[in-house]
Amino acid sequence: MPGGTDEPVSSGGGTPAVVLVEPQLAENIGMVARAMLNCGLDDLRLVRPRADWPNEKAVAAASGADRVLERARLYPSTAAATADLNLLFATTARTRAMTKWTLTPRAAASEIRRATAAGIGVGLLFGKEARGLGNDDVALSQAIIAIPLNPTFSSLNLAMAVLIVGYEWRMAANAVETAADATPLAAVPGAVLQLPKETAPATAEQLQGLFEQLESELDRCGFLRITEKRPIMVRNLRNLFGRAGLSAQEVRTLRGIISCLVAGPRRPRGGSGGA
Amino acid sequence: MPGGTDEPVSSGGGTPAVVLVEPQLAENIGMVARAMLNCGLDDLRLVRPRADWPNEKAVAAASGADRVLERARLYPSTAAATADLNLLFATTARTRAMTKWTLTPRAAASEIRRATAAGIGVGLLFGKEARGLGNDDVALSQAIIAIPLNPTFSSLNLAMAVLIVGYEWRMAANAVETAADATPLAAVPGAVLQLPKETAPATAEQLQGLFEQLESELDRCGFLRITEKRPIMVRNLRNLFGRAGLSAQEVRTLRGIISCLVAGPRRPRGGSGGA
Repeated sequence: MPGGTDEPVSSGGGTPAVVLVEPQLAENIGMVARAMLNCGLDDLRLVRPRADWPNEKAVAAASGADRVLERARLYPSTAAATADLNLLFATTARTRAMTKWTLTPRAAASEIRRATAAGIGVGLLFGKEARGLGNDDVALSQAIIAIPLNPTFSSLNLAMAVLIVGYEWRMAANAVETAADATPLAAVPGAVLQLPKETAPATAEQLQGLFEQLESELDRCGFLRITEKRPIMVRNLRNLFGRAGLSAQEVRTLRGIISCLVAGPRRPRGGSGGA
Repeated sequence: MPGGTDEPVSSGGGTPAVVLVEPQLAENIGMVARAMLNCGLDDLRLVRPRADWPNEKAVAAASGADRVLERARLYPSTAAATADLNLLFATTARTRAMTKWTLTPRAAASEIRRATAAGIGVGLLFGKEARGLGNDDVALSQAIIAIPLNPTFSSLNLAMAVLIVGYEWRMAANAVETAADATPLAAVPGAVLQLPKETAPATAEQLQGLFEQLESELDRCGFLRITEKRPIMVRNLRNLFGRAGLSAQEVRTLRGIISCLVAGPRRPRGGSGGA
């Protein structure tokens, strides 16, 4: 029923993408599609799903949300799935030993609305059913969404987690419309999203390029030479820069800084003049 | 695991009962039990379920929320299931040709909290999967909870509907607690910068040391050579790192990185072994 489930897109552009990292069961993907469309979301991205794709069981579980499944795209990695996005939220039930901005779904919903209204591409990352997101995927994200449920029984079905975040996103539309222009971007002095108007936020791909350059130079100078510590050091660095909510210009600046530090002192070098 | 999933009951007594009227699939009853326990609810009442009871499929779908299923009771009618309750809410996705108070789940959550705190027994009625509640059950209720989702795709899984109402009920408790404590930890409403316990935030002096090292190296390699741009470039860099909310350890790491990048590739250098 193409078009039959269309509804007017909310003012101010895009909807957040839902990125499922290594989902195990096709039924859950179908239920996620249904929950997404319940909330008016339809950009579904699958990173290495275990089940074959497309999948009959997913279609059955989607209960009519076929259009979300038809649009769904497959990716080999979280980095590939989020390359065009600017602001990533890692959804998690347990706390992590990482320094990260952590928001409730409700607080995140306002930030997401503000971001997409400003043309910033948002991705919501959900991990596999049994274990949630890996630390590397959390490290790729600018912030964590922690769903505040019963701490003694927090085993939440994947589609349920998507529903809660999507529901709050939908509810936030009403809130934003009600508040009208009373809450300008600058009124929330948050570290996550506050970018000057003229500044384009970095894409995940640009960030990835920065990380790769930095890590390769750190390999060369021996900073990451202790093999068993390398993964955690890399993750910590990505966290650190991820938290800063870098603009595209800042990524270019940092890349220039790394090149400059590596090149060393400028000095006249017979003619062509270095740097 | 009786007691294993207990959590302290919030002040003011009872939790609302979840009443499923003629649920069709045992799996859905199990998923409802799981969603209920996610939200800290455990009073489940079943009116004429189609499946045999107790039911293996329900247990499997409950993913550990066994205690809710074990407590669940069967009734021959909605009236019997709600006889001891005072205030009934009919949950519905479509509007009815009845004059009824209609609330969002969020507005209802406050009312439910107020009622149970006053010792009033509350029941939340959910209808069968395909068609929702019959008009007679809606008529038994004092008010309607209408879940405001995508009007063009409102087919909501039964357990999803229970989850949204339960989630709002749970959030309403947090709202009360938050208002009482009134100590926001961060400038973003609802956002908390999650620092691992062992991590001390950097002091301003430590940050200053990092900035001075970075800027002096950038002077040396020529990155800041355009005099009239230097002040704004320095300010932008300080902003960037300031935004990340660095820990003391992260400042040390960044300083090590700068030294390492400047020192260049590690190579055997006659004895003392660099870096």
